[in-house]
Amino acid sequence: MNKNSSNIMALAPNTSNKRETVCIFGTGDFGRALGHKLIQSGYPVVYGSRSTQISNLIPKDAEVLGHAEAAQKAAIIIIAIQRQHYNFLTPLAEVLRGKVLVDISNNLKLNQYPESNAEYLSQLLPGSKVVKGFNTVSAWALQSGTLDASRQVFVCGDDVEAKQMVMNIVRALGLTPLDKGSLLAAQEIENYPLQLFPMWKFPIFLSFGLATFFFLYCLVLDVIYTYIYEKNNFSFFIAITIPNRVCPVMALILLALVYLPGIFAAIIQLYRGTKYRRFPDWLDKWMLCRKQLGLIALAFASLHAVFTLVTPLRAFASWRTSKGIISQALNNKTEPLNHTNAWLSDSYLALGILGYFLFVLLGITSLPSVSNNVNWREFRFVQSKLGYLALILCTAHTLVYGGKWFLSPSAYKWYLPNIYILSLIVPCAVLVVKFVLIFPCVDKPLTQIRQGWERNPKYSE
Amino acid sequence: MNKNSSNIMALAPNTSNKRETVCIFGTGDFGRALGHKLIQSGYPVVYGSRSTQISNLIPKDAEVLGHAEAAQKAAIIIIAIQRQHYNFLTPLAEVLRGKVLVDISNNLKLNQYPESNAEYLSQLLPGSKVVKGFNTVSAWALQSGTLDASRQVFVCGDDVEAKQMVMNIVRALGLTPLDKGSLLAAQEIENYPLQLFPMWKFPIFLSFGLATFFFLYCLVLDVIYTYIYEKNNFSFFIAITIPNRVCPVMALILLALVYLPGIFAAIIQLYRGTKYRRFPDWLDKWMLCRKQLGLIALAFASLHAVFTLVTPLRAFASWRTSKGIISQALNNKTEPLNHTNAWLSDSYLALGILGYFLFVLLGITSLPSVSNNVNWREFRFVQSKLGYLALILCTAHTLVYGGKWFLSPSAYKWYLPNIYILSLIVPCAVLVVKFVLIFPCVDKPLTQIRQGWERNPKYSE
Amino acid sequence: MNKNSSNIMALAPNTSNKRETVCIFGTGDFGRALGHKLIQSGYPVVYGSRSTQISNLIPKDAEVLGHAEAAQKAAIIIIAIQRQHYNFLTPLAEVLRGKVLVDISNNLKLNQYPESNAEYLSQLLPGSKVVKGFNTVSAWALQSGTLDASRQVFVCGDDVEAKQMVMNIVRALGLTPLDKGSLLAAQEIENYPLQLFPMWKFPIFLSFGLATFFFLYCLVLDVIYTYIYEKNNFSFFIAITIPNRVCPVMALILLALVYLPGIFAAIIQLYRGTKYRRFPDWLDKWMLCRKQLGLIALAFASLHAVFTLVTPLRAFASWRTSKGIISQALNNKTEPLNHTNAWLSDSYLALGILGYFLFVLLGITSLPSVSNNVNWREFRFVQSKLGYLALILCTAHTLVYGGKWFLSPSAYKWYLPNIYILSLIVPCAVLVVKFVLIFPCVDKPLTQIRQGWERNPKYSE
Repeated sequence: MNKNSSNIMALAPNTSNKRETVCIFGTGDFGRALGHKLIQSGYPVVYGSRSTQISNLIPKDAEVLGHAEAAQKAAIIIIAIQRQHYNFLTPLAEVLRGKVLVDISNNLKLNQYPESNAEYLSQLLPGSKVVKGFNTVSAWALQSGTLDASRQVFVCGDDVEAKQMVMNIVRALGLTPLDKGSLLAAQEIENYPLQLFPMWKFPIFLSFGLATFFFLYCLVLDVIYTYIYEKNNFSFFIAITIPNRVCPVMALILLALVYLPGIFAAIIQLYRGTKYRRFPDWLDKWMLCRKQLGLIALAFASLHAVFTLVTPLRAFASWRTSKGIISQALNNKTEPLNHTNAWLSDSYLALGILGYFLFVLLGITSLPSVSNNVNWREFRFVQSKLGYLALILCTAHTLVYGGKWFLSPSAYKWYLPNIYILSLIVPCAVLVVKFVLIFPCVDKPLTQIRQGWERNPKYSE
Repeated sequence: MNKNSSNIMALAPNTSNKRETVCIFGTGDFGRALGHKLIQSGYPVVYGSRSTQISNLIPKDAEVLGHAEAAQKAAIIIIAIQRQHYNFLTPLAEVLRGKVLVDISNNLKLNQYPESNAEYLSQLLPGSKVVKGFNTVSAWALQSGTLDASRQVFVCGDDVEAKQMVMNIVRALGLTPLDKGSLLAAQEIENYPLQLFPMWKFPIFLSFGLATFFFLYCLVLDVIYTYIYEKNNFSFFIAITIPNRVCPVMALILLALVYLPGIFAAIIQLYRGTKYRRFPDWLDKWMLCRKQLGLIALAFASLHAVFTLVTPLRAFASWRTSKGIISQALNNKTEPLNHTNAWLSDSYLALGILGYFLFVLLGITSLPSVSNNVNWREFRFVQSKLGYLALILCTAHTLVYGGKWFLSPSAYKWYLPNIYILSLIVPCAVLVVKFVLIFPCVDKPLTQIRQGWERNPKYSE
Repeated sequence: MNKNSSNIMALAPNTSNKRETVCIFGTGDFGRALGHKLIQSGYPVVYGSRSTQISNLIPKDAEVLGHAEAAQKAAIIIIAIQRQHYNFLTPLAEVLRGKVLVDISNNLKLNQYPESNAEYLSQLLPGSKVVKGFNTVSAWALQSGTLDASRQVFVCGDDVEAKQMVMNIVRALGLTPLDKGSLLAAQEIENYPLQLFPMWKFPIFLSFGLATFFFLYCLVLDVIYTYIYEKNNFSFFIAITIPNRVCPVMALILLALVYLPGIFAAIIQLYRGTKYRRFPDWLDKWMLCRKQLGLIALAFASLHAVFTLVTPLRAFASWRTSKGIISQALNNKTEPLNHTNAWLSDSYLALGILGYFLFVLLGITSLPSVSNNVNWREFRFVQSKLGYLALILCTAHTLVYGGKWFLSPSAYKWYLPNIYILSLIVPCAVLVVKFVLIFPCVDKPLTQIRQGWERNPKYSE
């Protein structure tokens, strides 16, 4: 397979503890950074370059040769040039035969080309063993040595031994290689560093939009209405009071939106009588971002918790308390304990605390290292059983707290319902439909359908 | 080794970027789900089935043949049939010789059979290369594409190359293979998806039982006693006051129970003068669930923290505050600051905060991804040194807070001691014995024993 | 390669499901513990020992032979003897030829010898295949079976097959092998268990020193000054009031110190006009411990949050509140709401909550399992953009809260500035310089330099 004796030497286990020479094609920024790092780790480095005059940017200990001579010195050649210049490698096909070519290129856009750069390289030079790798590491990180972010280097390639050689270099540089399989994975690996939280975009936009709407809604009812009709300037409500109304509403609605797609899926499956037809696209996408929706809901719930706990520290709150106590003192009377109030206030606090506690538990379980340590049955138990329990507790918390607003006409300023009432629509709907779905007469056919049974087999064609 | 040319083709590195054909025996739910997913990922799929008439449940692009013909088309055969039907494969032994058989079966109970299904299959067909895998993935998860839970697929098998082929398929389906070694690991892999938090069962039952006992104890002393003797209806204490008494007590006792088995182990080793005899079974089991006990203790401590922080928001608390202030105002006097009270209240709050802070630190360290990044020495330092410091701080917090109850006769309603007194028994015992154990005259022989020294070598036989 | 038939048998895939025999040289504590564990996992174990009389410390089912005979029985030999006795293995070179030798030794100090023990062993016995492993596991952990800490066993070696054999044993013992590449990694693996949070030392000493200084500073101004000039004994401030002044100051300064080295680096690069010269050593070290500084800052911020939230529960706070209310009541007047105060108090609370929220988000992102799941671009976004936003919010929180102290002469007791003023120096400096650095006329050359451009190429030689 390997014709050059230099290859054979390099492929043999390096019992002599000498690192094999690595060749780098291209003297651009990443090529130089990688060369520096390789030399630091004890690899002899030879650059293949069009102009062999030694540039002072290139690491001092590296050799610079023409492409062909450089390639002959090493079994591994790192291709640090851009895809559009790959075709200049075609004349070198004979020299590169049997060599390991490491494609480290990145694109500027997701799926810029029909095939990945590494696959394109492999097609150009079918005699070489192409391995994709290093594209997720930045030149800046290599240079500065501050690898705070992921030390994972995704590696893929069709030749197992070539992949092993590259993975050994990755390890020698202090990084962690992760074998992603054959070269077919190259497209995914090339897309990876271009992403900026792709799964988070829709949930963040949705919650930003909803939160803005609810903020303005509260602003109108709590600040502007009060200013117009009661001549009270409560503009400082913008800082804490209104955020602390928006946050719980957002948390409750988003938590309900986590469980709504599952309800839709069950209804669709029951209606169709089969699980073998794809869900509509919007439902598929929705189901895939449930984890993100849940975590944003948890963020809102946490903010709500802290905003609530700081209440006694607010100047407004202590002024209100003083006013109440002083008016009682001036009237020479002490109000007795209102037991209903005591029950209500303690209940909604306790419900909220327990709901939030379960919510945090769900959040911890969704940490990658924790969810990797639970099996499917345990994950389902936590995310489904405990999740619904959290939703029930949080809905009850809101109902007990805001219950008095439903019937009081003062809660309908400008005929608009209070924000509590709005926040309860989605969670109550989810809970009611879920309650129907766990009735045996509905649950039994659903379970059968999910186990593969079909009501009307013709549908599945 | 591989007689069929189709096998050789499939085993060669697929430089042509064509996925090798995969054969699936069995058209049950999981077989169909896996087939769908494989076709989506670009694998040609051929089903081996008793009846070759094309069922409309089977993915459209898949071929359906008899078992023997199907097997000849592929190098990898996924056995999606149940263990009790494995013996029908015996006549096919010749066709399956050299093929990779993937056992994906699960059992209904832990350790249902003496040997694992994969080992049984391997015994039936000694000429084939059996690989265990995919049994931890559910058909529903494969079908719906929502792989929220673990993407890890445990793979084991005696043939390294066969295992590699299966791991490549796993990667192509977007899952993460995890090599668990030889086929001996199959039993463990088959048991894995049947578990529901096995390590958590005893700690959860224990804390549930203890919490119920303490809840009823408080209910009797705080609500029923008050109702009978003082005619006060404090039933709303059930929501927050009593939980906030039970939670700290549970947290302290469970934290002490984490360190108690280590104390027992040290005493047993000192008494026996050797470390080479097994601990009693109950102690072994107890030591193995210390992490779970600690995390439940942390949960109780967190609930206690939040229940305490919401105190000023409770209607009862603000009523009590008002009453106190109004009675002072009506008496025309301002009480001076009680310095002892100020010291006590600030001390137990500060002790509690620091203890809880260390407690949370211990919890973070027990996250799998964090504990994998510390070495043995660092882990011991955090879990032992910082853990004992947390126990000392939390015990001191309880002592300073509840100290006044010890001697006051009003704390002994119905001659029952206050719950604070009960909660201090175990932690104080642990701390006292630990204090004795770190005396040099006790610590030195213990260290020697733990390094392998024996007082009476005859014991170890 | 393998001359002994026993080796060949052992190297062949163990289709018979029998574990291969393992030989252990040395009957010390670790050798015995490992032997016990191996026998438990089904491996036949044979000890190689100078004296072949059966000691009762050695597991009962193990055989004890002379070194040469023991070595011939197995393909894998675990060398459980100390480095200084390695040379006695030289006469056995012929017997050990082709065998897998597992070096499990540890040193007493970091980098005790010029080459790692495993490399030294490999030089002594060039015909054997040396694999480093098991040194990160303690004998106590193996014996007691309570592997709470890392189950990772780092393995390295030049022979891939030998490494695989050792990794299979590691898996069989219930541990997780981690391939660290060739034998060159042995030094790192041997140093690993000797470390005690090496990256944390400087940040912890720094914050301990700073915190002590600020604590004493506050003690002087708040307790001693008050006692001397106002005859008020506020010694109980030591428990909560002063810690709650030190914690926010420490959190803010440490958070600013996380971003200060980046500022220095940018200035140095701009001044030099190149990124190809190394930063001064102190800057390099500082940049490497930014994560640790940030996490300690988060710990201080968390303590500050909890210390603040317990304020209403303190005896001192409720006494102060009562006093204020009673004096109003006795004067028969109710003070109106001070809108400026309401705005200020709500603003700094809201700013602090949002800043802390972002801070916690940064902390979660630095968990290993989370940072491994984000790419470089996402990590930069969170740690740089969100990090600066957190710094801005926290600085604003301090400014709004402490703003009134700047100009009030009563804040300058003994002509010393208030602690708030001290805490703002570093963060304000960082923010001002950062603001200058993002001006296009400064940002553009900096970006060019970071992409590899050089102003004065001569500098880089």
